[in-house]
Amino acid sequence: MDVDQYMLELGSAAREASRQVAAASTAVRNRALLAVRDALDGARASLAQANSEDLERGRVNGLDAPLMDRLELTPARVDSMLEGLRQVAALPDPVGSITDMNTMPSGIQVGRMRVPLGVIGIIYESRPNVTVEAASLCLKSGNATILRGGSESLASNCAIASCIAQGLLEAGLPQAAVQVVTTADRAAVGRLIAMPEYVDVIVPRGGKSLIQRISSDAKVPVIKHLDGVCHVYIDEGADLDMAQAIALNAKTHRYGTCNTMETLLVAVAEANTVLPRLATAFAAAGVELRGCERTLAILPDISAATEEDWHEEYLAPILAVRVVDGLEQAMAHINTYSSLHTDSIVTRDHGRAMRFLREVDSSSVMVNASTRFADGFEYGLGAEIGISTDKLHARGPVGLEGLTSQKYVVLGEGQVRV
Amino acid sequence: MDVDQYMLELGSAAREASRQVAAASTAVRNRALLAVRDALDGARASLAQANSEDLERGRVNGLDAPLMDRLELTPARVDSMLEGLRQVAALPDPVGSITDMNTMPSGIQVGRMRVPLGVIGIIYESRPNVTVEAASLCLKSGNATILRGGSESLASNCAIASCIAQGLLEAGLPQAAVQVVTTADRAAVGRLIAMPEYVDVIVPRGGKSLIQRISSDAKVPVIKHLDGVCHVYIDEGADLDMAQAIALNAKTHRYGTCNTMETLLVAVAEANTVLPRLATAFAAAGVELRGCERTLAILPDISAATEEDWHEEYLAPILAVRVVDGLEQAMAHINTYSSLHTDSIVTRDHGRAMRFLREVDSSSVMVNASTRFADGFEYGLGAEIGISTDKLHARGPVGLEGLTSQKYVVLGEGQVRV
Repeated sequence: MDVDQYMLELGSAAREASRQVAAASTAVRNRALLAVRDALDGARASLAQANSEDLERGRVNGLDAPLMDRLELTPARVDSMLEGLRQVAALPDPVGSITDMNTMPSGIQVGRMRVPLGVIGIIYESRPNVTVEAASLCLKSGNATILRGGSESLASNCAIASCIAQGLLEAGLPQAAVQVVTTADRAAVGRLIAMPEYVDVIVPRGGKSLIQRISSDAKVPVIKHLDGVCHVYIDEGADLDMAQAIALNAKTHRYGTCNTMETLLVAVAEANTVLPRLATAFAAAGVELRGCERTLAILPDISAATEEDWHEEYLAPILAVRVVDGLEQAMAHINTYSSLHTDSIVTRDHGRAMRFLREVDSSSVMVNASTRFADGFEYGLGAEIGISTDKLHARGPVGLEGLTSQKYVVLGEGQVRV
Repeated sequence: MDVDQYMLELGSAAREASRQVAAASTAVRNRALLAVRDALDGARASLAQANSEDLERGRVNGLDAPLMDRLELTPARVDSMLEGLRQVAALPDPVGSITDMNTMPSGIQVGRMRVPLGVIGIIYESRPNVTVEAASLCLKSGNATILRGGSESLASNCAIASCIAQGLLEAGLPQAAVQVVTTADRAAVGRLIAMPEYVDVIVPRGGKSLIQRISSDAKVPVIKHLDGVCHVYIDEGADLDMAQAIALNAKTHRYGTCNTMETLLVAVAEANTVLPRLATAFAAAGVELRGCERTLAILPDISAATEEDWHEEYLAPILAVRVVDGLEQAMAHINTYSSLHTDSIVTRDHGRAMRFLREVDSSSVMVNASTRFADGFEYGLGAEIGISTDKLHARGPVGLEGLTSQKYVVLGEGQVRV
């Protein structure tokens, strides 16, 4: 099999299909989503069969336990895929709205119409449910998709793909609107990210090394999330009960998520009061603290933080703690070490809250809220394809709107330029 | 001189300055723009001196006449730079607006704040007035800029840069907010487009080969415009007087601009009537026509169009003409050959007008208007840094808003995730 030729054929078919999906009505796209739901529901037995093949191969190949867990399509996970499709079908259509329509001095009317991006390539690792999630968001937003999952979930992905194809067929949409790459050859990824004539954007979902490799090699734009080194800053005069609740939640609600706090900054004026309380609470939660010099002077029993700690996304029950002079130093620290993901200030002072919002250059900036809220569902997007730490196009949680862009529409009555 | 080291220093200083520019008030940024205006006005003699050095060097190096023309800073061009600064200062500030603020079920309020991108690298060719234009748009939108003009205009650019520095100083902004690369070494460009830690986006302005080279080598996002293969489609039943006026204007108003029509599509139902009229009018304007077979059957004296003609951006008094069956074939032609720039339909039919708007995937789609309107000023943006034929971030004419993005702001009262 010639992988290059195979990928070019997928790409060309996707480009062709993307025009039909973009032109399809909201009703047709929603009908397809619900038909995919029904097809998956009717194919539970064959999904389970395909998934058990993947699991068996995983066991033989000695995949580790977390990978095996992500690979498994339990009945509950299938239920959740079906529910997801229903929810996406129920979301408002992001495509077609015309905004900012104004009449210009020349007499032409100029506005902007929201339109699909075209063809979206999704590259992900072992979770087969991503196949349905990603396909449904792309389809809802009027785009064609090429999905490239991990080779360890190939059988499951192919089984899911045939349900998707059935749903598309029933709604009268081309099957090439959602295509799954069926070769495990790694060259397929290299080709997928380097055919700008057929693919408009790549969304990689997975570990940092995967995303870095894809970003550096891609010849098309990548909507990506690298890491989440998130901060909470406890300001002078903050409500310390609130500060403690937010800090604990931001760190301990879940350790492995990108919006988990990794460094806590405390204004020196509050350090003597709040740090001992926090140390007790974090110790009870089993969180290891690593402190700067001024922190160590208050909490002598914890270990010292090194320069590396300020850069670190632990994704674990470890927290770096730094005492700062105040807002200026907190913002300087964040703008130096933050991954531009999510940073929060706990404060009672309106002026400092506003400065933090304006001057911290992260995709989500918060006042008196846990960083764990940085999430498409919590933000009311209804869905999330990922979280972007890039500055162009989409920043922060990316929902359906991030899979679209706006073009200019001009309505005239015969106007010409003079 | 170590170019790598030099560029890294410019980059680092720009990143630092970008935070101060972003935090500066609207009034301070506007004051800087007007102070730059006054500094340029007061430095007309030294600008003329520097420019004459560039012109002299150009003559010695045998630059061609159009290049020499673009290089010259006439008093009228200086006037126009000053007027441009005044206009940019008078535009509304795109930065800081918060939109879509809504309360979520968790009680947090979530909205989006418009913020500068950070550091913008501009790479351009011989016109020194671009130095002022680009710097002013970036400064107005709260960004720092690194400008790399053509080596042939280096003396002029340096003279302009010192006026900009003076204006920044008077407004209390860091001089590194606008920096001009003062080395003619080409390695500087290679470094500028490959330091994502310091530069957030590159805007190249110049010929297609420059832009292609930069896009393929850049390690940061590029807002680019490649070419403008623009179409006008004359629909069945169109007002033929209107069609003739629009076609003539779209082709002959200016030949060298990217929004000039390069291919005319005519519905077969109107071809016999409208093509002879248009042939007469285009002949009178000195435009050479190249036709498809069906066009040649009506206009036997013109030459035949080849496959290459449909791809061609002539930027010259040449027009490719194709007779199509109707809307479907016109859109298929456009979606095959268009550069996604600007395409217009002349029609009386509302349904076909709406389909054209929805289904033609170009950055500007028009009904009954000349493609020549695709322009930031005509669209009411107040300014234009370029026209984007990309699909992500900004499509079509890029004004101040295209130099910003939106981050999420979250206002809480102590909420945590449950």
